[in-house]
Amino acid sequence: MRDPKNIAVIGVTGYTGFELATLLLRHPSIREPVFYVRETNGAHCLSQMFPQLRGWGEASVQTLSVDAITSSAAGTAFLATPHEVSSTLAPQLLDAGLRVIDLSGAFRFPTAATFSSWYKLPAPHAARLADAVYGLPELYASTIAGAKLIANPGCYATSVILSLRPLSQAGLISPSQDVVCDCKSGASGAGKEPRRDLSFVEVDENLRAYNLFSHRHTPEIMQHAGVSEERLVFSTHLLPVARGILSTIYVTLSAPQTSESIETVYRQFFAGRPLVRVWPAGTLPELQHVVRTNFFDLGFVLDSGGKRLIVVSCLDNLGKGAAGQAVQNLNLTLGIEEQTGLL
Amino acid sequence: MRDPKNIAVIGVTGYTGFELATLLLRHPSIREPVFYVRETNGAHCLSQMFPQLRGWGEASVQTLSVDAITSSAAGTAFLATPHEVSSTLAPQLLDAGLRVIDLSGAFRFPTAATFSSWYKLPAPHAARLADAVYGLPELYASTIAGAKLIANPGCYATSVILSLRPLSQAGLISPSQDVVCDCKSGASGAGKEPRRDLSFVEVDENLRAYNLFSHRHTPEIMQHAGVSEERLVFSTHLLPVARGILSTIYVTLSAPQTSESIETVYRQFFAGRPLVRVWPAGTLPELQHVVRTNFFDLGFVLDSGGKRLIVVSCLDNLGKGAAGQAVQNLNLTLGIEEQTGLL
Amino acid sequence: MRDPKNIAVIGVTGYTGFELATLLLRHPSIREPVFYVRETNGAHCLSQMFPQLRGWGEASVQTLSVDAITSSAAGTAFLATPHEVSSTLAPQLLDAGLRVIDLSGAFRFPTAATFSSWYKLPAPHAARLADAVYGLPELYASTIAGAKLIANPGCYATSVILSLRPLSQAGLISPSQDVVCDCKSGASGAGKEPRRDLSFVEVDENLRAYNLFSHRHTPEIMQHAGVSEERLVFSTHLLPVARGILSTIYVTLSAPQTSESIETVYRQFFAGRPLVRVWPAGTLPELQHVVRTNFFDLGFVLDSGGKRLIVVSCLDNLGKGAAGQAVQNLNLTLGIEEQTGLL
Amino acid sequence: MRDPKNIAVIGVTGYTGFELATLLLRHPSIREPVFYVRETNGAHCLSQMFPQLRGWGEASVQTLSVDAITSSAAGTAFLATPHEVSSTLAPQLLDAGLRVIDLSGAFRFPTAATFSSWYKLPAPHAARLADAVYGLPELYASTIAGAKLIANPGCYATSVILSLRPLSQAGLISPSQDVVCDCKSGASGAGKEPRRDLSFVEVDENLRAYNLFSHRHTPEIMQHAGVSEERLVFSTHLLPVARGILSTIYVTLSAPQTSESIETVYRQFFAGRPLVRVWPAGTLPELQHVVRTNFFDLGFVLDSGGKRLIVVSCLDNLGKGAAGQAVQNLNLTLGIEEQTGLL
Repeated sequence: MRDPKNIAVIGVTGYTGFELATLLLRHPSIREPVFYVRETNGAHCLSQMFPQLRGWGEASVQTLSVDAITSSAAGTAFLATPHEVSSTLAPQLLDAGLRVIDLSGAFRFPTAATFSSWYKLPAPHAARLADAVYGLPELYASTIAGAKLIANPGCYATSVILSLRPLSQAGLISPSQDVVCDCKSGASGAGKEPRRDLSFVEVDENLRAYNLFSHRHTPEIMQHAGVSEERLVFSTHLLPVARGILSTIYVTLSAPQTSESIETVYRQFFAGRPLVRVWPAGTLPELQHVVRTNFFDLGFVLDSGGKRLIVVSCLDNLGKGAAGQAVQNLNLTLGIEEQTGLL
Repeated sequence: MRDPKNIAVIGVTGYTGFELATLLLRHPSIREPVFYVRETNGAHCLSQMFPQLRGWGEASVQTLSVDAITSSAAGTAFLATPHEVSSTLAPQLLDAGLRVIDLSGAFRFPTAATFSSWYKLPAPHAARLADAVYGLPELYASTIAGAKLIANPGCYATSVILSLRPLSQAGLISPSQDVVCDCKSGASGAGKEPRRDLSFVEVDENLRAYNLFSHRHTPEIMQHAGVSEERLVFSTHLLPVARGILSTIYVTLSAPQTSESIETVYRQFFAGRPLVRVWPAGTLPELQHVVRTNFFDLGFVLDSGGKRLIVVSCLDNLGKGAAGQAVQNLNLTLGIEEQTGLL
Repeated sequence: MRDPKNIAVIGVTGYTGFELATLLLRHPSIREPVFYVRETNGAHCLSQMFPQLRGWGEASVQTLSVDAITSSAAGTAFLATPHEVSSTLAPQLLDAGLRVIDLSGAFRFPTAATFSSWYKLPAPHAARLADAVYGLPELYASTIAGAKLIANPGCYATSVILSLRPLSQAGLISPSQDVVCDCKSGASGAGKEPRRDLSFVEVDENLRAYNLFSHRHTPEIMQHAGVSEERLVFSTHLLPVARGILSTIYVTLSAPQTSESIETVYRQFFAGRPLVRVWPAGTLPELQHVVRTNFFDLGFVLDSGGKRLIVVSCLDNLGKGAAGQAVQNLNLTLGIEEQTGLL
Repeated sequence: MRDPKNIAVIGVTGYTGFELATLLLRHPSIREPVFYVRETNGAHCLSQMFPQLRGWGEASVQTLSVDAITSSAAGTAFLATPHEVSSTLAPQLLDAGLRVIDLSGAFRFPTAATFSSWYKLPAPHAARLADAVYGLPELYASTIAGAKLIANPGCYATSVILSLRPLSQAGLISPSQDVVCDCKSGASGAGKEPRRDLSFVEVDENLRAYNLFSHRHTPEIMQHAGVSEERLVFSTHLLPVARGILSTIYVTLSAPQTSESIETVYRQFFAGRPLVRVWPAGTLPELQHVVRTNFFDLGFVLDSGGKRLIVVSCLDNLGKGAAGQAVQNLNLTLGIEEQTGLL
């Protein structure tokens, strides 16, 4: 019998998988998770692979095989794997009756064409894409609760969509002006594979813009932010910090507003959402406020004319931007409070 | 007899003044500079104040007094002082026949009203403001060469103006869309006075937007960038690095362009300018490329439609953004190559 | 009626006090703590003073007065105050029947002379000093459990004492050779008051030795490490990191040992101590392994001759080095597991 | 005809080679250097490989071949290559009549056995090793001036030897106590090859001891520091900075000294040495003072008994610790001032 509180985690050697492990080890409402990796190198429990986890509790490590997972009692699987791996694994686990929460980009788009055009790879089956639910709880909580396949959003995408959707839904964004999203991320967002351009010496005391007009999170934003594709400009920068994304977002309003009215729009949109913190008008969150948390923080400044708005939002790319959000999605599927294990 | 190669430097205890000292100590075409400070604390030469300067050459340190300066043979004075000090000192030195290169904001605006409204302080005499030349060599080299009072530009302003002016002068900027300038600076730009929010613990692993819609460099940009005030959006962020500014600038072009045409516009504008490096279309400079140099580096990416342009430019806020540019201005007044002592 | 689970915290504006707040807000076994500060600036709850605490739970903030504390039901007071403040407050709270856990240096020494000679200040009453228990749980757990006044150890001292005491107690340290303790700490250890030498620009990309032969944690180490004063050499360095202490400790053994025997000595000494992690012989902890935890991690390498030992130990100066250890001491006084709320 | 001022540089893609390039491009007394690399990837000049070098001057890049070098007029070759490459190349260039300055570890030891035992590789020919001169100018300037093969010292070794040799030569080091050298280095010292443990995320906010009792610079120190092998303890740590080494060195003196006498010993030893700066007794250099310079800075503190000395010394591992020292050696062979091009 599958039990959704029996958790299988596939992949733990990347930054996202490791973060997920630290969250699940402390989660009060699940059974002890089992971690599947390509190479156990003789390890049987997580703290043999990661000595810094000793003292936090233990969890089993096993060699990855679909059979091992599907013949266990696991009811929920997290995929902290590259998109090409997720693309193959997810259908097999779904067919065996597991719920899948995928942290890669494989199932984030409604059509195969979008995936292939941005990822330059064959897409998963169209039917799977159609079934997948975009796992952004502040927008789609009720659908997520019943989903079998949840596509956990990109870190940048989470940051931008949560900043813009309340405004667009309220009809506040001028359709005739660009919305500029200038985003900055810490280096853990680029993954753990050794790369010369991610070495300490190359990132330290540096700042670098990258993937201008070509970042893979673009189509997610287009799909969910409520801004027309022609109007959205999205850029990304690599910060000399380990964790965190800060997005500075420039919006021209469709009509003049007051700071109070903007604050009200955000507060109403996020009412009852425990992992979103709207800062009082005129105050701004900083990266340090959210790093190593699972919060999304948002503040803004309105110019004196009331038409030009700058939104500053922050999250931890491994927290609310990845593993934290994945656990938030798990919580929704379990019918427990969405912030369980995340504060 | 005043000799313009006899240099007096007022203020050396801030980051800008210290940087100026290191440049002047190695400058091949001037006499040994004399440094004036409020408190010598018994020091007679610069390396007594800054032991890390030993071995680089020596320079005299004296207690600041207008008489001491005006009774010396100094022909050129650098003011690396707060704007309220520069505001008072500059007229006295000018009256005594010295040329003044002021690194503060005191003389950067054509009208007293602009100064007072942004700096919340009484402005220098209107006549002095009118005489001052804005010391941005790539725009005003010939006027600078003959100026008695040179207002060295702000660091952010240099970065934004040099990025936009070539485009605006070529008529390439659409008048109906905002120009968004998202700028990020290292902590030395905020000065050396102890402040809790500039302590290591508060800046490290952090990113913070500040002074949105209210940064004092705004009016300089309005004045010189060639973009209408209504269309310019300028924001500033504090990076966890010691030095350097990277500006990401979003421009909608008035008509579609090719990357080649944009590159040509920049190359022609900066032809013969040894401290500007235009990167080939599609390549981008990073902060590390300019830190501890006196270069301004600029690259760009054009979207596939040819109408949306992202310019990425970098400089060292203490180099081309302050002390390096001040020495470049000195060189122009001395009639020597502008990059002398700056490579 | 005083209840030891009713907690008063005096001081929350420094790094240690803030860390203590974050630990107490999540502690499962206490009542909601009350925070006393010199200036509330109109705040009634902690998240008004620190917006980044919103969402973690709430706690009352009140203006500091001895009367307010003693007339409340508080049974335990934490002093996260400067030593001159603790020196005065602790006796008043003790007299009113509260238990006091002091995080300053005021009560760490058995004699007033030691305090005055190292702190250059009048010492607390000798009787109070005599009553105080040095709050290092791995050495003095049973005494701490019954203490009325607990002097929480210094961060460096914790690091060095826990590294050496197991060896000295086992008679393994040669009495004829120096024990060199080369310690490195992050900047939060120096406190939150603005200081030029702690600004980002001065600490970043730097390393600095300081207080050689004169650091105030020296007498604590002398008292508790089990190494003769003449043989102990202790030095401190400021690292460009926010948090964490790594100590490299050089010991000549009194007789040749094997790695196994050394590991056994440490494991036996720390048996049953949940916040100490001894790394397997030949492996070493790194600062990242303990930062933002309440663990003390220790590893070592023995040379081929078996007589020269290098111990590398790490802790978070705000965790096991200060606030975490204070909560560990609280737990002992409450008779609950010492790691409660600390994992 | 070979001209020693015609310089061939083999290897420029590592951090040391690049640093060497920046120094040679500005050196006033040599001809334009030629750089040889395994893969030019179509580049003909250095700034095509490294766009950030544009504006500094130009230099030719050619595909590496021994024939190309030996058939040129080059009289001096720098080898910024791995030791296994240097081991093969140096003899060929020497046979062709070039002077060779090797920055690898291949020729630093007098015997093949020492090399093989520490580097786990076949050693260069014993005769070559015997001919090689250890390129530490403050110790061996006159021999270096006439050498055909100069083995440029290791960065850590330079730091430790220059700290200890003045003391040992003066007979001040107690033979019965260990000399502990606790050294800390920035990440560029570990080279430019991509490694997971050198990625930004793994080095940032971290400190790590490594290669305890097994670092390859140990035998150089044994050979030249003047301390007996049995008494020397040398350890290394990876700092979260890009550049710089700070060594904290613990010495027990053979007889009590005053600070003045220690300072005198150092000043006399380094008299006339322009790249060494001895700090006044009781003051200490910091890493920032030497980073991006070619200086070696040294300070010390003596305890009140006058017998225990802590020396703190700093250098830039790419400057005085590698490329700067290599150029200093070149200058000696050219008979020009040793600091030429290095200030």
